[in-house]
Amino acid sequence: MSTILLEQVTIKGEKKDVLIKGNIIAEIGDLKNIKADRTINCNGKWLLPGFVNMHTHSSMTLMRGISEDSPLQEWLNKIWDIEEHIDGEMIYWGAKLAILEMIKSGTTCFLDMYWIIPQIYRAVEEMGIRADLTYVLLDNFDREKAARQIKECESLYERSREWNQRCRYGVAIHADYTVCEDTMRWAGSFTKDRGLVLHTHISETLKENLEDKKRYGMTPVQHFESLGLLDKNTVAAHCVWVDENDIEILGKRGVNVVHNINSNLKLASGYKFKYNELRDAGANVCLGTDGAASSNNLDMIETMKTVAMAQKAWREDPKAMPISELMEMASHNGAVALNMNAGIIREGALADLILIDTHSPFFVPDFNFEANLVFSANSSCVETVICDGNIIMEGRKVVGEDEILEKANEIAWKLSKIN
Amino acid sequence: MSTILLEQVTIKGEKKDVLIKGNIIAEIGDLKNIKADRTINCNGKWLLPGFVNMHTHSSMTLMRGISEDSPLQEWLNKIWDIEEHIDGEMIYWGAKLAILEMIKSGTTCFLDMYWIIPQIYRAVEEMGIRADLTYVLLDNFDREKAARQIKECESLYERSREWNQRCRYGVAIHADYTVCEDTMRWAGSFTKDRGLVLHTHISETLKENLEDKKRYGMTPVQHFESLGLLDKNTVAAHCVWVDENDIEILGKRGVNVVHNINSNLKLASGYKFKYNELRDAGANVCLGTDGAASSNNLDMIETMKTVAMAQKAWREDPKAMPISELMEMASHNGAVALNMNAGIIREGALADLILIDTHSPFFVPDFNFEANLVFSANSSCVETVICDGNIIMEGRKVVGEDEILEKANEIAWKLSKIN
Repeated sequence: MSTILLEQVTIKGEKKDVLIKGNIIAEIGDLKNIKADRTINCNGKWLLPGFVNMHTHSSMTLMRGISEDSPLQEWLNKIWDIEEHIDGEMIYWGAKLAILEMIKSGTTCFLDMYWIIPQIYRAVEEMGIRADLTYVLLDNFDREKAARQIKECESLYERSREWNQRCRYGVAIHADYTVCEDTMRWAGSFTKDRGLVLHTHISETLKENLEDKKRYGMTPVQHFESLGLLDKNTVAAHCVWVDENDIEILGKRGVNVVHNINSNLKLASGYKFKYNELRDAGANVCLGTDGAASSNNLDMIETMKTVAMAQKAWREDPKAMPISELMEMASHNGAVALNMNAGIIREGALADLILIDTHSPFFVPDFNFEANLVFSANSSCVETVICDGNIIMEGRKVVGEDEILEKANEIAWKLSKIN
Repeated sequence: MSTILLEQVTIKGEKKDVLIKGNIIAEIGDLKNIKADRTINCNGKWLLPGFVNMHTHSSMTLMRGISEDSPLQEWLNKIWDIEEHIDGEMIYWGAKLAILEMIKSGTTCFLDMYWIIPQIYRAVEEMGIRADLTYVLLDNFDREKAARQIKECESLYERSREWNQRCRYGVAIHADYTVCEDTMRWAGSFTKDRGLVLHTHISETLKENLEDKKRYGMTPVQHFESLGLLDKNTVAAHCVWVDENDIEILGKRGVNVVHNINSNLKLASGYKFKYNELRDAGANVCLGTDGAASSNNLDMIETMKTVAMAQKAWREDPKAMPISELMEMASHNGAVALNMNAGIIREGALADLILIDTHSPFFVPDFNFEANLVFSANSSCVETVICDGNIIMEGRKVVGEDEILEKANEIAWKLSKIN
């Protein structure tokens, strides 16, 4: 079993040595006398758990910047047009580009929602990151389509049993306005029986809420609840438009609610996210970037800043959104949602860790490291990334990055010209 | 006169050569045959005008992160306590740190508001950036204090006449709730007679507006107008709380209004900035970062993103704040406000330029450079900075940066312990 020693690394302000054995944090303390296969001098570096990006559509990085300053419907039509033509090769290079960006900004695990999962898995496997890949059901209330998708979903699950342990399979319901109730129920029992994550979009827009009230006589949250789909294995992205009753349900069921502030702001879908209320009710609030087609990047440090700024602003309270909670939301809460012993620096936890280089004006003075990280710096301070005990970025270099940038750009242009 | 040739640099999507002679952009075109003192191969680099940060308090970078998640009054008391003890040496190192950060994030000119101006000038002179330094009048309605400050303001003006041409002197009225009307009138005529910038805070908070209505029976904008203080040489920071009549006045007078979104969000002082209305009325809207004590950094690329996101969100319109206007606000509009031929890439303009390195996942695919810069990348993409025809950062290295980080940190800790 290979070992890595992080020598004199700063953890919450204190210098310690950290020994990684295999994919686990084996020991933390004064480990001067230990010999490891690899020793990294961490002078001036802070150690953090890697970020867990709890909602994205990785391959959509191919559509970054393709439709800017557009009204929502025009943007969606453009994206849907493109998605009709996306193939396995495109999915693969899109995912590689996304994973490269995530690694370079300190993310060690992500929850994805997309199609052609085996190609995304190939990218995850090669790049060394950790991921839960959810196959998205989107039947548009068409029974034949639903049957085909269910069959594919089942067969992908069978294939996933041979996957590397860094990667797990899950199921997504796109949203309750695009998927029929029978399919939703099927997804609920399929995931429950197998202990898989059930990933979905809930209450991203006001329009969606008003339509659900007309169609089902209830809000999207209440609709999911009525179908028995909400529990600790459910990951509900957005939940921007929730009322008191919705919050009570999400809390009572311990649902993992993912706030994607950049996407919500940029698409103008709503920003008064009820963080305090959801937390107090018992929901596990996590952070996500959404896909780069809407939020333009997959940067969790930037996401933390924007979340805090938006909470302080709309609540008219500069004390809103304490930094310590923000840091938990960006790493540990995601790990809890995905049922992993990660997102935390402690003996026995998975060695999904990042080193932050504080040698820059953004970290001076060094009164408050977390405030400097979140409010002053940007993701270029992430210097080394370790996932599952392997170094996947060092000195900001990721193996193969030039080829990924070149191929992804070429493929994106090809995709953009199909229509 | 020294010359620099930027070879095959991308300007708005087209590759061109740019010749800098002395401090001026001398020629743009196909300049293959020209020999320059220095030739820079700009393959894969985009050229932009340097950013103009139109509102900051440079030396306050020493207080970055000193009082986080605090209520406004507690934050202010802490800052004021500290400022009573700040001396020339502290001001100097604080300004050096601020300028280092600004250069590293692509800013070539800033408008400052602070005290102990000669020490800030010394920092500007040494670092090679361009600046307008405004001495801040803050008499707290005390006539003796006002007389002393006016005398100092006059004497600093005399000293400034020997300054390097990159640096100009101006006067600031802290705000109309901290400065008596006589002092305000004096500042108006002093700046008008000498063609200097008059810099001030106007309508940052709702409280300030309500107090003015009680004290003067009018809004802060109307109060400044009644004293004849608003014209094209006035730079009004914030203007968050303005009504229709205020907007009409600011527009009619062609006032330079500076939006400082990060500070406004973080201090929860208001975010519904009336960009469209101010622009349409005729105001020159610019961008600023405010001091790092409130906004935590001096990063104009991040500022552009946050401005756009906030406008899209509160206006509930994803088309709000087109990128092209945003780019103008961050550079050219500031140059116009300060009456400089800069903030634009054209022959005859000042050579205040930055090179952007697009070799990173944030710039892939390359459908839309400006969208990638503003919404995806961060300021670590700024690779080279040229100010007044001199290269002041190259390959992200600034001369003397290690010493600045070390000294500024030391001084900041000293300052924090005075109380």
